[in-house]
Amino acid sequence: MLDKSHRKPGQIVHSEAPFNAEPRLDRLRRSFLTPEENFYVRSHGDIPDLEADGYRLTVGGMVATELSFTLAELMERFPNRSVIATMQCAGNRRADLHRHRPVSGDPWEPGAIGNARWTGIALCDVLRAAGVDERQELHVAFESHDVVEQDGERFRFGVSIAMEKALDPDTLLATHMNDAPLPAEHGRPLRLVVPGFAGVRSPKWLASITIQDAPSSNPMQAEDYKLFPSHLSKETADPSDAPAIEALPINAAICEPAAGAKLPAGETTVRGYAVACDRLIRRVDVSADGGESWTQAELSGDPDAPFAWMFWTTRLDLAPGAHELVVRAWDAAGQTQPSRPEHVWNFKGYLGSCWHRVTVTVT
Amino acid sequence: MLDKSHRKPGQIVHSEAPFNAEPRLDRLRRSFLTPEENFYVRSHGDIPDLEADGYRLTVGGMVATELSFTLAELMERFPNRSVIATMQCAGNRRADLHRHRPVSGDPWEPGAIGNARWTGIALCDVLRAAGVDERQELHVAFESHDVVEQDGERFRFGVSIAMEKALDPDTLLATHMNDAPLPAEHGRPLRLVVPGFAGVRSPKWLASITIQDAPSSNPMQAEDYKLFPSHLSKETADPSDAPAIEALPINAAICEPAAGAKLPAGETTVRGYAVACDRLIRRVDVSADGGESWTQAELSGDPDAPFAWMFWTTRLDLAPGAHELVVRAWDAAGQTQPSRPEHVWNFKGYLGSCWHRVTVTVT
Repeated sequence: MLDKSHRKPGQIVHSEAPFNAEPRLDRLRRSFLTPEENFYVRSHGDIPDLEADGYRLTVGGMVATELSFTLAELMERFPNRSVIATMQCAGNRRADLHRHRPVSGDPWEPGAIGNARWTGIALCDVLRAAGVDERQELHVAFESHDVVEQDGERFRFGVSIAMEKALDPDTLLATHMNDAPLPAEHGRPLRLVVPGFAGVRSPKWLASITIQDAPSSNPMQAEDYKLFPSHLSKETADPSDAPAIEALPINAAICEPAAGAKLPAGETTVRGYAVACDRLIRRVDVSADGGESWTQAELSGDPDAPFAWMFWTTRLDLAPGAHELVVRAWDAAGQTQPSRPEHVWNFKGYLGSCWHRVTVTVT
Repeated sequence: MLDKSHRKPGQIVHSEAPFNAEPRLDRLRRSFLTPEENFYVRSHGDIPDLEADGYRLTVGGMVATELSFTLAELMERFPNRSVIATMQCAGNRRADLHRHRPVSGDPWEPGAIGNARWTGIALCDVLRAAGVDERQELHVAFESHDVVEQDGERFRFGVSIAMEKALDPDTLLATHMNDAPLPAEHGRPLRLVVPGFAGVRSPKWLASITIQDAPSSNPMQAEDYKLFPSHLSKETADPSDAPAIEALPINAAICEPAAGAKLPAGETTVRGYAVACDRLIRRVDVSADGGESWTQAELSGDPDAPFAWMFWTTRLDLAPGAHELVVRAWDAAGQTQPSRPEHVWNFKGYLGSCWHRVTVTVT
């Protein structure tokens, strides 16, 4: 465990142990690739203090040959690969759901998201080196070095993904984030990066990979991070009946101005992000009157980065008084977001992906 | 042109020339594969009366060798392939948008959709036989035998799709629908089937295929079937600024009971469909109180048909009085639908994909 504070300037810290923090939204909106100091941190246990020296990754289960690699062996043997991908916590914007009706878990604002260039090697190359059984009905399970303490039990963090996603060449074993070695908080020395999936499916501090015929039985896979219908509660929900959260719905947020801002009369620049998992964002609409009327924002992004967010900007001429600013995004399938938190509410507070609303006052 | 009526029992006919009709929803919900008599017909001109004998398909443009095939040559040369795919008009449920605020075009109820097993050959096999230039930035354009009359102009129906979708092995040149030769209304003897895309991108009565470096300049591609923001009108919209409708958002409808039904008190079976383009439907919620509270419906479908709709069923115990029944669906990315028609309204009345509502009275 690291013996230092993980705090960065301008962070909203939800808990120190495990360390969970997100950036202020104006900081998040500063650059298309999110620097480490503005990248949210979601930990489920203590942050392991692993060095590249002495690190090993094992590959086992339904493979022809069980393998074990040092970090140097992995990097030497397999071709280097990069992907720009937005990482987003399944609990991003939980605070919006909580304000409607209480939910469990840290009250993340819209900052539990970040975009980075991830570099390392393709998971599929490592799996094939081990002679993986590639049948689509199989699962690739991961166990990490971090220890989770939950409901009186202690266990290592673990999840799984379906074989098809594991074999996607953009699913990486990453050693670098924005061209620098992974910081401890983000999984040093090696993490998985599953573009388009919720952050929970991209485990950090990776210890082992196991090919198996069922999803991981780890509580992180089998019990947590499930999407329940709105009529169920902790007491009535059966996790074995609910789908594991993998791909994420459309999300968008207003990063500037901040909620509660007092603004001078005249033109105000409104900025934010929008993201749609594995689909492109096609349009972003902004309203200054709670969603009665809309204007189209300008988009900017990287056309070669289909798993990355887009940034949007518009200018609004606001009269004195209070204004509810609203954003909604549309993806390449003409899909848009639900309007209200009650339309996506669930007792675990996941996938808070309704229209984002920010009230400001013009003086 | 066919010299007979195309009417089928139980159809809602929106226009005779061009012939546009949809089934009653109780008929639509009868079987997972929609028989011809319950399959919607969307024509843009007269229905060509083509026979297999004498039919030719040409392939040209950016190919190594321009080719021309009779139907027999196509079927002999290329392997047979089938796909189960739901075909849906971009204007399905336009009536729901129109009731909120007038839109142009036929007022389709939720019946402009059907699901079939399409059989023929893979488009990619034919393109490769011609030595197609496979660069992703290219487009595959189609021209058909039907003649559209619009704004005083007469032109042959034509659209295009991007190279990536054209090379998808599930994109078919189909001769059969549900194991029978295509009926005239559905494109006899050969039509395109682009799974997951709006029906307009699956032209019927196909005449020619052209590989080119830009989308089709045909008005069907360049002007119609565009998704405009809600604040634009016919006068202010610029089609060159708006995306062509291709993939479709999540949609779901209540097929039984019918809107306005008078029901006896006690248990009522509610049935419908849900579809999410290239994503699986994960959950369907049904409300008997306008969306205040929800119950989860049972799903049935074909797990091996990812482009097909799912059917859903639930039983509600309704007290005497009026009830607004509502359905909403969720896809595998945890995405759900907007609640109200004003949230998806556009002046062309496309992609009417908000929650579907049906008011019934229990006596």
